[in-house]
Amino acid sequence: MFVNQRTIRIEWGDCDPAGIVFYPRYFAYFDACTMSLFEAAGLRKQQMFKDYDFAGFPMVETKAKFIIPSRFGDDVVFESAITAWRRSSFDVRHRVLRPEGLAVEGFETRVWTGPDPDKPGGLKSRETPAEIVSRFLTPDERAGA
Amino acid sequence: MFVNQRTIRIEWGDCDPAGIVFYPRYFAYFDACTMSLFEAAGLRKQQMFKDYDFAGFPMVETKAKFIIPSRFGDDVVFESAITAWRRSSFDVRHRVLRPEGLAVEGFETRVWTGPDPDKPGGLKSRETPAEIVSRFLTPDERAGA
Amino acid sequence: MFVNQRTIRIEWGDCDPAGIVFYPRYFAYFDACTMSLFEAAGLRKQQMFKDYDFAGFPMVETKAKFIIPSRFGDDVVFESAITAWRRSSFDVRHRVLRPEGLAVEGFETRVWTGPDPDKPGGLKSRETPAEIVSRFLTPDERAGA
Amino acid sequence: MFVNQRTIRIEWGDCDPAGIVFYPRYFAYFDACTMSLFEAAGLRKQQMFKDYDFAGFPMVETKAKFIIPSRFGDDVVFESAITAWRRSSFDVRHRVLRPEGLAVEGFETRVWTGPDPDKPGGLKSRETPAEIVSRFLTPDERAGA
Repeated sequence: MFVNQRTIRIEWGDCDPAGIVFYPRYFAYFDACTMSLFEAAGLRKQQMFKDYDFAGFPMVETKAKFIIPSRFGDDVVFESAITAWRRSSFDVRHRVLRPEGLAVEGFETRVWTGPDPDKPGGLKSRETPAEIVSRFLTPDERAGA
Repeated sequence: MFVNQRTIRIEWGDCDPAGIVFYPRYFAYFDACTMSLFEAAGLRKQQMFKDYDFAGFPMVETKAKFIIPSRFGDDVVFESAITAWRRSSFDVRHRVLRPEGLAVEGFETRVWTGPDPDKPGGLKSRETPAEIVSRFLTPDERAGA
Repeated sequence: MFVNQRTIRIEWGDCDPAGIVFYPRYFAYFDACTMSLFEAAGLRKQQMFKDYDFAGFPMVETKAKFIIPSRFGDDVVFESAITAWRRSSFDVRHRVLRPEGLAVEGFETRVWTGPDPDKPGGLKSRETPAEIVSRFLTPDERAGA
Repeated sequence: MFVNQRTIRIEWGDCDPAGIVFYPRYFAYFDACTMSLFEAAGLRKQQMFKDYDFAGFPMVETKAKFIIPSRFGDDVVFESAITAWRRSSFDVRHRVLRPEGLAVEGFETRVWTGPDPDKPGGLKSRETPAEIVSRFLTPDERAGA
């Protein structure tokens, strides 16, 4: 499994009057980390819009568990991986790691889409190109597939 | 079950380059709607800090399903209710309603806390006061309890 | 001068660890209030994209002065008006009013744009249609013009 | 003059339906860059709360000029410096630099505060400690002072 790590600085403005990260911000961090995961696999979102019949991978369902809070000035590690590929959807898991242990866990199910030919500006789910999926496989996983 | 409705205007700055609500914003809307739900039950958060041995109800776990996107300028209805009370935690459900139907569904599990006597600035889970819980019961539910 | 008022509830998630509104949020409120001001004049942004050779009114320069802080749960009044029209730019002033007095003052200079015919996806400044400007004039101002 | 640089990745969720940074986000970036500037001078905000009779440096007035827009996926350089110190206030200037040139310019006036002895939870402006100011001076500026 291809895993990407990104360190994020918790900013003052990301925290609430309790002094801890306002939890909706974690979903924004997760979204940025999914982009970073694709980019680490050589797939920049801006470029994918040009190279593929691609219109984004909107969120279908997302979930998070909050275990240890973080405060402004903390540098926390976000570890992201795609845990499942289906025909036209995929799952991403994010783990926020602190020195004390697992701080937050996030789960996403996204759908691969292309432009809807019947509806200008619309999206339609598409099979994720095999070439995209293979970028996230380790050599062993590719051999085994 | 006590249900509260709040109409929220989707603002330009809440939408992403795809022209639809940037999904982390829904969690911020939901957080605001949980506050509104308590307020509709006569419990303003600012006041609860003064009246109760209360230190907030931090999020333990949250989830959302995204069905129909919304765009800037849309006025959407958020319908919120507490669906379960346990000793020191409770569940909130949010439904985002559009003319076409259910647009987003959100679920929260929050824990009732008070100040931790052993740790200045810390929080400790507490039993939710019965008086708080009863504010969210209908007369029938109160009679049946 | 056409003035629009909008009451905004300060949410928990709009406040920082000092317990007051995180000031960048005021600019998001102001942006929303400029939309409301146009809408109050009968001009919804979504509609203007369809009705006019219009591509938005991006911000050129903005400024704010912070006088009295606001806290979560506060309902504050935002009073907005266009204070000057030039050929292709205009000025907006926002006043945030609290019972104690003027809390924040915001100033915007925006430029009226249409699609750039020479650059797909690009914007080009345009003369603001007289019909748009006249919507913000009082009967007296129209007579005097 | 002590200048700090920080590269910021523009995220999808920081951009609006026009595909460019939603301008209030620049003020959040600037706030984070002011923190980074202090940190580069050896002054972490969390630590200053402990070491000094310090209660933050709230914003009094801020301004920004927007010259070239940025899009998601862009890495832009923020260059920050304190341009003036007065008894209890100071000015910060931020420059957002792109390969094409100056993209955004930001200006802040902040006031140095400590806890108000007469009002629990309140702030009171204070003279900025000379020791703090000197951290931002170059050896030449210190010699010349």
